[in-house]
Order: sequence, then C-alpha cells, then structure tokens
Amino acid sequence: MSSCLSFSLLATAGRARTGVLRTPHGDVPTPAFMPVGTYGTVKGITPPELRELGASAVLANTYHLWVRPGHREVEELGGLHSFMGWSGPILTDSGGFQVFSLSEYAKVTEQGVRFRAPLDGEYRKLTPELCVEVQEALGVDMAMAFDECIEWPADRDRVARSTERTTRWLQRCMAHRQRPERTALLGIVQGGFYDDLRIAHAQEIVELDLDAYAIGGISVGEPRDQMLAMAELTTPHLPVDKVRYLMGVGHPLDIVDAVTRGVDLFDCVLPTRNARFGQLYTSRGRLNIKNARFRVDPRGLDPDCTCYTCRSFSRAYLRHLFLSNEILAPRLLTLHNLSFYQRLMARLRDAVNSGEQELAALRIEAVRWMRPYED
Amino acid sequence: MSSCLSFSLLATAGRARTGVLRTPHGDVPTPAFMPVGTYGTVKGITPPELRELGASAVLANTYHLWVRPGHREVEELGGLHSFMGWSGPILTDSGGFQVFSLSEYAKVTEQGVRFRAPLDGEYRKLTPELCVEVQEALGVDMAMAFDECIEWPADRDRVARSTERTTRWLQRCMAHRQRPERTALLGIVQGGFYDDLRIAHAQEIVELDLDAYAIGGISVGEPRDQMLAMAELTTPHLPVDKVRYLMGVGHPLDIVDAVTRGVDLFDCVLPTRNARFGQLYTSRGRLNIKNARFRVDPRGLDPDCTCYTCRSFSRAYLRHLFLSNEILAPRLLTLHNLSFYQRLMARLRDAVNSGEQELAALRIEAVRWMRPYED
Repeated sequence: MSSCLSFSLLATAGRARTGVLRTPHGDVPTPAFMPVGTYGTVKGITPPELRELGASAVLANTYHLWVRPGHREVEELGGLHSFMGWSGPILTDSGGFQVFSLSEYAKVTEQGVRFRAPLDGEYRKLTPELCVEVQEALGVDMAMAFDECIEWPADRDRVARSTERTTRWLQRCMAHRQRPERTALLGIVQGGFYDDLRIAHAQEIVELDLDAYAIGGISVGEPRDQMLAMAELTTPHLPVDKVRYLMGVGHPLDIVDAVTRGVDLFDCVLPTRNARFGQLYTSRGRLNIKNARFRVDPRGLDPDCTCYTCRSFSRAYLRHLFLSNEILAPRLLTLHNLSFYQRLMARLRDAVNSGEQELAALRIEAVRWMRPYED
Repeated sequence: MSSCLSFSLLATAGRARTGVLRTPHGDVPTPAFMPVGTYGTVKGITPPELRELGASAVLANTYHLWVRPGHREVEELGGLHSFMGWSGPILTDSGGFQVFSLSEYAKVTEQGVRFRAPLDGEYRKLTPELCVEVQEALGVDMAMAFDECIEWPADRDRVARSTERTTRWLQRCMAHRQRPERTALLGIVQGGFYDDLRIAHAQEIVELDLDAYAIGGISVGEPRDQMLAMAELTTPHLPVDKVRYLMGVGHPLDIVDAVTRGVDLFDCVLPTRNARFGQLYTSRGRLNIKNARFRVDPRGLDPDCTCYTCRSFSRAYLRHLFLSNEILAPRLLTLHNLSFYQRLMARLRDAVNSGEQELAALRIEAVRWMRPYED
C-alpha cells in the first residue's frame, strides 16, 4: 500500500538524524516538536502565531474531539484543518491514554474499552475500528493506532499479554482504514520496560509495514533513564526511512537526549502547561514568574529569546498579569515557552547537521536550562 | 495654565460633533471609544491588536493599579505606557467608583475614603491628593478627578451635599497637580439626576477651567432615558472646545444616542465583558455563541465584519472553544466585539461628517443590533 507519508533522511550525527517528513498538508523538518492542541486549539495561541514561532505540525486528541464537538460535526465542517484554521500537518493521539487515565470504570475487553466519559457521565465504547473512523473523519495527516496503555510498573506477564492485544488492535486498525491516501497510520511500539518484549514488539509491528512508528507506553511515571533506555533500545529496530515519534516527551533535555538516540518527532504538554502555571524555560534556567524577585524587573523573560513576549514585555509586567489572573498572561507565557521549544528544535537540526560535537555542546546548554533560574 | 490636551472641532451634525483630541501620546479622532484595560491590559488582547482593530486610546484604573502592582513600581518601570506596551493615549478612572462599589466598610469623610481592599483585606485610604499622585506617577495622558459616587436613586439633599464635596475634592485635585504638562486633569460633572443640580455643577466646574470634562454619576442602574437625559442636559453647558466624556456608556445604541447629544468620548466594559460571556455584537443582532443553532454553522460571527476572528473561524469552532473553556475563546470573541465597537465609532465619525440624515440612518441600524440575532 503506498503511503501518504514519506521521510527523507538528510544527515546523521551518531544515531541522531535530520530529515524531512512529507505529509498531505506540508513538510515537517525533523527533529520536530508538535505543540499540543488537545481540543483543536493550542491553548491561547492562534494558527498564524504557531506558524510564526516555528511550529510545522500540531497534535490534537481523538478522544476529546470525538466526545466534543464530535468527529462527524468536524467532518461536516470540512475536517479538523479547516475547523481549527491550521493548514499544516496534524497528528492525533489515539485517545487510548485518555480513556485509561481520565475515565471512571474503564473496562478493557478484547473488543475495546468501555468507559464513562467525565464530560457528560455517559457510557461510551472506544474500539480500534472507531478510533480509525474518528481520525479519518477528522481528516488528520497522521492517525495513531489504538493501543492499550498500562501502568508503570507492571509485571512481565501483564505487559506481554497487553502487548499482544495491542498488536491485534493494530491489525484491526489497519483493516478498517478507508482513506490511507489522506490519513497515515502510525503503529505504536509497546512492551513496557522489558527489553526483550519491546524489541520483539518493534520487530513484529515493523513487519506490518506501517506508515511510521511511535514509541509508546512511556511518560507514565517511570524514571527518566528508563524512558531514554527504551528509546535507545527501540530505534535500531525501526526502519531508517520512516519517521520515529516518541510520545509525550518531554523537557528540553529529554528531547536532546532522545534525538541523540535516534528519535525524530515529539509532543508534550510541558511547554504549554508549564506556561499556564507561570513556569518558563529560559537560557538562564527555569524561571517562576510569580517569584517576588521579578517585581520590578524591567528585563524580558529571556535575553536570548526574540519572541513577541520577550521583545515586548518586562518580567515585572508579566508577573503582574499572572498575579492578576489576566488571560493575557497564559497567552504571552505560552508563546514564549513554545518559541523556546521551537528554537531548540531548530538548533538541534543545525547541530545534527554539524556533527556530534555540536550536539554534545547543545546538550551542555540544555542541562543548564533545567536548573532554577540564575541571573 | 496651559493644557497638554487640546481638542479641535471638525464638523457638527445637530449637536453631534467630530473632532481630534490631541494628547501627549498622540491623537484621538472623536467620537471615540476607549477599550477598558483595568489592570493595564485589555483582557486577552495585545497592544498591536488594539491598534489594528482601530482603538486610539485605552482606559485603565487608578484604584486597581495603585493596589497592584503599585504606582511607584509602575513609575520605576517607566510609567504605564511602557509597562503595558501601549504607546497611545491612556485615560485612568479615578478609582472612586471602585472604592465605593468593591470595598467593604467604605467610610467617606471630607478628607477622603477609608476602606478595606478586597484583594488583601488591608485598610487603605484614598484622597483627592493621592488620586492625583497615583495618576501622575502612572504618567497617563488623562487623569480623572476624585469624585464621590452615590447610588441611584438618592434624595436631593444627599445629592446636593455630595456634589458640593465633589467640587471641593476637585479643587484639591487641581491644587495637588505636579505635572500638568504631561497629565491632563478632567473634571467630572455630578448632580445626580436632578436637572438643576447637574446644570449648576457643570457651570461651577467649567469656571475652574479644567483640561476637559466628563459626565459622571451615570451607569449606576438608572433607566436608559435618564442617562440620555443627563447627557442632553449637560453638554450645552460644557465648553465647545474641550472634549466631553460620558463615563461607562454603553451599548452601541447608547453611544449613538449620546453622540447625537454632543458627547465625544466613551468607555465601557460591555464589549469585553460580554465577549467573555459569549455575547457578541453583530450586524444581525446580538448573538449568543453558546446557542445550539450554531453547532455546525460554518459562517463567521458577522458577515459584515472583517476582524481576524470573523475572517478566520466559524461560529461552530468558536462555540466549541467557548464550551470547552478554551482561553482562545475569550480572546477571539473580545477581538470581535472591540472591532465591532471601533467600526461603529468610525461609521459615527463618517455619519457626523456627512450630516444628520446619515446619523439617523445609522441609528436605525443600531436599533437592529440590539435585537436578538436573526439569520
């Protein structure tokens, strides 16, 4: 089956790679970070602003859009791109994670998951087939297969059985596709944190020849080194000519470390969610805008940042907005954090193109970004 | 005393006027509507957006900025223009209204008002002198005198005594000015809803030769015709060559009706606050975005509007954002309502320049805008 997704490798530095992911709605230079727009909106930010700050693709959520406003409604309105006013590539989470984490009484059977939706208290059932149907109706460029998400830690037997079910669900997703020329399907490597299970699962689903592959089942509370170990373990078993997506990761340093392990694509709520809580990423470390030290600080958030927020407003003003619960605060702070992430991705692409030494130098900087802010 | 404010009359149509108000931070074509930015921010909107949608001046609040972040802090940061990133004219409310309406235990004496601030529970005292001091420290173009705000209805004796006190407070404000070359002082005509008291007060404070005059003590719950009657009664007693500001008014139709009675300058929370509650002004009437009829409506809010929101998003999407409590909703809806108001002001200026007939035709349209939305 010919794929609507293609990936061209440009350069490598060790296992790190740069490339271009081609989608029905345009190209994504990789490594790339997709801002999270769960409900079809990156909170507080317009599509032209996303474009301007350097995002080339965004992520939305199948589960949330299925519950509200409904995939048929979005389809009637011309699909998700038109609905949210974003003409670039869109990837949707399958919704599996949300079903497991948000809903009461989630009951998993071979058929799918029955659960009670928190929004309206109604019982609903999500199956691999419906999951594909919803994502194709949304008309997204990249659909994620419906997988079973399990907790960490989980015992080996439970992980093995769950991973087998994920493979069967993936096959049902594949069989149910109607519009492969418009919406690519990504398989998700599971296998928990058991090396042999993960490698076996990667090999098994690579055989199924999907459009691309994601590393799933991480960011579930495990230690950071476990997450990186799974990325390191998995990427050598994925095809070189397909894009590799590490789901839900992470801090800037996590992204640098995952890129050096051969990952191309990322999404994470951290830059947007942290911004709404007043936590900013800067070249001088992590800055809490609520801190009294910024009360009359006339400087922008980050002297090395050229985003609209940093060009236009002082820390004192941003602190004032935040403490006054003004909605301009999350808007401006989100814009900064997303700009910080996109600049990181651009620098990562440059570093990989330059070589391992530059990548190592960038990692040293990223370590500093994780520390508390220092003048 | 030479004033930092000047007003040039351009044209009249009956008692309606167009003109240009010159301030230290630029010109304001009148009639003009000032968006409300209480805490030094028009909720959700950036200064370049305000400029683009046609606002030439904004309003902020003395009381709120005095309590937080503090006028000395704002002064240290270069003044309110620099603090909030707005380089155009700023007018500040005196804060009298807030002290009376928001605080517990407000006690009025000849000296000023002692009250308990809701924000921190602290006892504070606002006097005419402090009110001027705060506004001059903020560095605003137009400061409002500290006046006593009384309830509606109030008996004649109470209104008469209060109006006399307002005059004494105004004189104290005038005596305390340090920077008349930078911050103009506007006197506020009180007198409640007693014709003779209001006329007498207008005449009395016009004698004091202030930079401009406001009609105050309205928008306190009185019927609409009472408000308009007070505007009609007062404007003939105000100087032709000074700008006239009707505080806190109002709906589009109120503004049209006040302009025909000789008012030049307006501010009101309605376009911004209504937007946050999902209530939109459109050329087809007032639209409630929560309404189920808009569930799959692909049209923009207002077919006659060219604002970013109307150019870019469907009613269905805006409804989805609103119901999902997404902060992009208040942002986009506020942008539309403010654009609607600014377009009204531009059309009012054109109509006054064209003559009374055009003004009457615009009023007929404005009557339609006040009705519930109709397809």
